[in-house]
Amino acid sequence: MTLEIPANYQRIVLAARPRGPVVEENFRLETVAVPALAEGEVLVRNHYLSLDPYMRGRMSAAKSYASSQALDHTMIGNTVGQVVASRHAGYAVGDYAAGLLGWAEMGVADGAALRKLDVAALPLSVYLGAAGMPGMAAWYGLNHIILPKAGETVVVSAASGAVGSVVGQLAKLRGCRVVGIAGGPEKCAHVVDVLGFDACIDYKAGQLEADLAAATPDGVDGIFENVGGATLEAALARTNAFARIALCGLIGGFNGQEMPIKNSRILLINRLSLRGFIVTEHMDLWPQGLQELAQLVADGKLKYHESVATGLAAAPRAFMGLLQGQNLGKQLVKLI
Amino acid sequence: MTLEIPANYQRIVLAARPRGPVVEENFRLETVAVPALAEGEVLVRNHYLSLDPYMRGRMSAAKSYASSQALDHTMIGNTVGQVVASRHAGYAVGDYAAGLLGWAEMGVADGAALRKLDVAALPLSVYLGAAGMPGMAAWYGLNHIILPKAGETVVVSAASGAVGSVVGQLAKLRGCRVVGIAGGPEKCAHVVDVLGFDACIDYKAGQLEADLAAATPDGVDGIFENVGGATLEAALARTNAFARIALCGLIGGFNGQEMPIKNSRILLINRLSLRGFIVTEHMDLWPQGLQELAQLVADGKLKYHESVATGLAAAPRAFMGLLQGQNLGKQLVKLI
Repeated sequence: MTLEIPANYQRIVLAARPRGPVVEENFRLETVAVPALAEGEVLVRNHYLSLDPYMRGRMSAAKSYASSQALDHTMIGNTVGQVVASRHAGYAVGDYAAGLLGWAEMGVADGAALRKLDVAALPLSVYLGAAGMPGMAAWYGLNHIILPKAGETVVVSAASGAVGSVVGQLAKLRGCRVVGIAGGPEKCAHVVDVLGFDACIDYKAGQLEADLAAATPDGVDGIFENVGGATLEAALARTNAFARIALCGLIGGFNGQEMPIKNSRILLINRLSLRGFIVTEHMDLWPQGLQELAQLVADGKLKYHESVATGLAAAPRAFMGLLQGQNLGKQLVKLI
Repeated sequence: MTLEIPANYQRIVLAARPRGPVVEENFRLETVAVPALAEGEVLVRNHYLSLDPYMRGRMSAAKSYASSQALDHTMIGNTVGQVVASRHAGYAVGDYAAGLLGWAEMGVADGAALRKLDVAALPLSVYLGAAGMPGMAAWYGLNHIILPKAGETVVVSAASGAVGSVVGQLAKLRGCRVVGIAGGPEKCAHVVDVLGFDACIDYKAGQLEADLAAATPDGVDGIFENVGGATLEAALARTNAFARIALCGLIGGFNGQEMPIKNSRILLINRLSLRGFIVTEHMDLWPQGLQELAQLVADGKLKYHESVATGLAAAPRAFMGLLQGQNLGKQLVKLI
């Protein structure tokens, strides 16, 4: 198979670090030349770009768990696409692969840094969501931190998002009562009616604490936290003794807000265990986790929803929407 | 052996719950009759009463990990003393025993609820400190939550106290760099010169963060937290990736102050593990832990200091002093 290789492609670079909320001026669309491949490298035409909350952290200069995104370089990002040229024995033209090629129409990677995808088994985009990094974050936090038992109650914030939607469904498969927290009645309806959570609290309705209390009559044994702040506080207030908290994200504070845990005393009183984690530090578990997730999706036991923006130029606005919670499910940019 | 059994004894009851700081009026000294023993019971004359921060929590009506102390009942408290009458086969008059007989000169307990003590091995009072519950709290939190490796840095707040002093010495024995936090130059001198910590920060000197940074050049891998608030915040700010936090107490907030963890983001960024614990929930480990602790004290490898008030009537004031950090080491009331 041969596929056309253009001379140039478009990419988006970080033009300036955000001061407060992310704005379009933080990004710059550029046209660059397709580079020649070195031995072992693969050229991939990206079909989908994943937009994820962690990118907001990388845009800041402050030390985080990873080095910050360099100015004037291609924005970091997970991608899936098709190989259009290869100097790596493991990849042939026409193969599909997941990589970290960033906000760009094309990209070059060492073949060893790519993951070959089976597009006969699942739609390509799913490898960026339920059968990709967000799915793994859900799988790891639930199975290795919360360790839920049947009959326990698990609370999931950002419940309609790419990670939260998987957390809740996996917890339901394990026999838990699952209560989501999401923003707005449409998201909550999706979480209950489509994803099958037992309940979903709309935090925008203004009575998060009372609503969560009503939805967790037996208390809370596990918290999968993606947001922080008021949602975490409300869930902590409902914990039973020995509850476990998987701290996956704090998207509520991505614009630099302080995110205090006001009630630290409950960590002691209820003998809680809280652990922050980054799923890419547990790559040894990915083969097992991804295989399980892909099988669940293929079997129809793990549902997913995608919010898809079209064209690379749409990425900044879609990303700002993601940070504001405008997406439902996995936020993607379709490039081809 | 026979020992005199008086007709009456004195005890201190909770007269009123504190509103804010504990005051003398929260307590009432009473004289009560020595009860007759039922089958299986033992009458113990208390030699020492232990005063511990957890008692402050019990004095409040609010739900905590344990039921609150009932009004007009003997204040809860760990005691060591000598058996003066026994209807339990395991105890003879003259034996020494640890129990939970409260703020009282004497008390009756089921023999099964007592622990027989070897006063030839250690001074009686040590079974309320380094070889008792405070020692076990240190032992459990360090060995089962922090799990320090040689060369790692461990920070201990309330470092001169009954728990903190043991934590630091155990961590030193495991080859760690140990930095204490305590209030005042005298306590800090004790922590370094007598207990052998590598450094001790006087939080009252007003530059906790800078001093702690200077004392932890390689960052912090373990935090044993007894205080909360500013001391926890300062230690969190110094954590390395994957640091562990054993949350044993929050004495800084015992008068009802909120104790926020302002920088919750660092829990995620540094992938921290934090666990609150109550040592009396891990009784299966006490035989091993107490045996190790007693041996270390007997060998001179685990040093301890006691602040001793004399006479039951002195207990309320000594307890208020404990909550204000006026004691050095284990706070006891000597009754006989």
